[in-house]
Amino acid sequence: MCTLEKRGRVYLLTLTGTDEHRLNPMLLDAVRSALARVRSEAAASSDGGAALVTAAEGKFFSNGFDLAWARASPSLRPGLMTAALHRTLADLLSLPMPTIAAVTGHVSAAGCFLALSHDYVVMRADRGFFYMSEVDIGLPIVDSLMSVMRAKIPDPRTRRDVLLRGKKVTAAEAEARGIVDRAVVGAREAVEAAIAMGEELAARNWDGEVYASIRKGLFKEVCKGLGLEEASGEEAAAAAAAALTKQPSSKL
Amino acid sequence: MCTLEKRGRVYLLTLTGTDEHRLNPMLLDAVRSALARVRSEAAASSDGGAALVTAAEGKFFSNGFDLAWARASPSLRPGLMTAALHRTLADLLSLPMPTIAAVTGHVSAAGCFLALSHDYVVMRADRGFFYMSEVDIGLPIVDSLMSVMRAKIPDPRTRRDVLLRGKKVTAAEAEARGIVDRAVVGAREAVEAAIAMGEELAARNWDGEVYASIRKGLFKEVCKGLGLEEASGEEAAAAAAAALTKQPSSKL
Amino acid sequence: MCTLEKRGRVYLLTLTGTDEHRLNPMLLDAVRSALARVRSEAAASSDGGAALVTAAEGKFFSNGFDLAWARASPSLRPGLMTAALHRTLADLLSLPMPTIAAVTGHVSAAGCFLALSHDYVVMRADRGFFYMSEVDIGLPIVDSLMSVMRAKIPDPRTRRDVLLRGKKVTAAEAEARGIVDRAVVGAREAVEAAIAMGEELAARNWDGEVYASIRKGLFKEVCKGLGLEEASGEEAAAAAAAALTKQPSSKL
Repeated sequence: MCTLEKRGRVYLLTLTGTDEHRLNPMLLDAVRSALARVRSEAAASSDGGAALVTAAEGKFFSNGFDLAWARASPSLRPGLMTAALHRTLADLLSLPMPTIAAVTGHVSAAGCFLALSHDYVVMRADRGFFYMSEVDIGLPIVDSLMSVMRAKIPDPRTRRDVLLRGKKVTAAEAEARGIVDRAVVGAREAVEAAIAMGEELAARNWDGEVYASIRKGLFKEVCKGLGLEEASGEEAAAAAAAALTKQPSSKL
Repeated sequence: MCTLEKRGRVYLLTLTGTDEHRLNPMLLDAVRSALARVRSEAAASSDGGAALVTAAEGKFFSNGFDLAWARASPSLRPGLMTAALHRTLADLLSLPMPTIAAVTGHVSAAGCFLALSHDYVVMRADRGFFYMSEVDIGLPIVDSLMSVMRAKIPDPRTRRDVLLRGKKVTAAEAEARGIVDRAVVGAREAVEAAIAMGEELAARNWDGEVYASIRKGLFKEVCKGLGLEEASGEEAAAAAAAALTKQPSSKL
Repeated sequence: MCTLEKRGRVYLLTLTGTDEHRLNPMLLDAVRSALARVRSEAAASSDGGAALVTAAEGKFFSNGFDLAWARASPSLRPGLMTAALHRTLADLLSLPMPTIAAVTGHVSAAGCFLALSHDYVVMRADRGFFYMSEVDIGLPIVDSLMSVMRAKIPDPRTRRDVLLRGKKVTAAEAEARGIVDRAVVGAREAVEAAIAMGEELAARNWDGEVYASIRKGLFKEVCKGLGLEEASGEEAAAAAAAALTKQPSSKL
């Protein structure tokens, strides 16, 4: 369902196969296992910085939740699926390194939450749409996921066009309207651009835990909605004291 | 005080008369009655989609609260007036169809909250200003209304210029700075543009309740401030399950 | 550590000396004393409107917290320093007049919170960077301060570049990306531009308390994080009633 390889200092997580990469708990658990491996390998490594790139094979990055799977048990499975996505997004938002989504094809509905929960988004320009289909297919959106949109698409007109109008956004337009960072022609090229970006970020050798704590502060409301606990005032003070003591005075 | 007519699938609500359309409880209750009629007619109709356009006669869309009326009983009436506006904005934010304000003339103070509480805003370009006069006349703004500004004018510099500087914004500038969607020359032309937009949106035949639930999610903080209850996690799950079961599998 | 002088109707607060203006409690308390003097002089004055400009001598506006001072007692002093900055920012956000930072040189880390807590920011264009160094030196950021960034830099990509990438932003770029209002060549020229802006704003003769209450409403989350109490619904209603009674009817 997904593979993990290392390119230089960049972990490349690929959703494999040419299907739609529908997000059911099986696929999401496979992604979470890969993220756990990234986290533990990076912690054990002496390479310094690292970065994560998430990409997909085929013409879809992800076409959203696996609604066909969910329908088989509509009172139970939608909740399981949402909870699995929550946990995956929480893993991404707390990962102690920069994260980049290489949106290699169509991305829609829940797939958009997955892509936008990375720090950077590179999107393939020559084919594929960013499309929140919920209003068109008549599916409500739970608030914890909606908070990703509120945080990552701050312009209320863009957010409205995406969510209340079901606009199919091309990569060029997504870049112009601030939904993604860069549109790149070609799926392979998009992945390579993301890896190059990851190398550059990894080379900064940031302290991963500080990086993750700043990210969580930047996207506080999302983290709260996903159940990521916040550092208490005392914990934050202790972390600051520790960081201060750790630094060579030349850096201060 | 206001009329309601139907143009194709679009409900056109017009504040009648050439006065300033000052928002006192009498006018706001008339607007709320019209909105209730829209809601019940649309529910009973077999037309599929619908949309609402709100416009005004004369050179004012609305010049804000009816301060002269309020002054006659300053300990009681401001509160009544604010509560009536809350209820009106809550009706707009929960209306199960797209909403468009056709700002046909000057709009200021509380009139701006009314206009911005629609999903789309078309503003007459050849005359009229968008003007938050509170800082100039020395009136504080209650937080529930301020939340409309925080949600709909996300750029803090624009918000500051509008609210802390009392800037009189023309339609062209309001469009450029993301306060309104479109500037159109002529009052009649602005209304016609809004109706055309409404027709196009109505033709999408969205599920009105899902539409309203996504809107409330997009503007969560405003809805909370206006007392619009939020769906609990369980209710949201039940709605998702129901929506899932209702869809033909070809749409998923 | 700082001086206060009056130029026309503008109070000019200057961080004196050619050091880095590191924010320890001694400097911050001196700033707070000056702000208290501004507040009381303005209240006693019959000049009508006023404005505050904050500037600095030397090549730094402020290079952030005084980490060397804090390190001497890492379990105690970081907390004291943060608390002193909180109080200073709360003073700025509740000051009953427009406030303008004249960023006359490098500004980094905690210095950026100080600059952005003014209503307007003019930044020297010919030298100096806006630089959030925390990710580079490995220091976490407490949430109350992070909320300043969330409120004043709304674009999540800009916020990410500043905070998660440690981007050194020039004045020209800071202006283009909406971090500051204006880039001006020359330190003296930046101060003069800020003073001219202050004169213009002071001439509006706004009611200072209403001005401060609207500002607090605009930046509600920041104020909450800094412990600035919010007016209750009843207090707000009473203030509105009082304001209404006070106005000549010609202004309404």
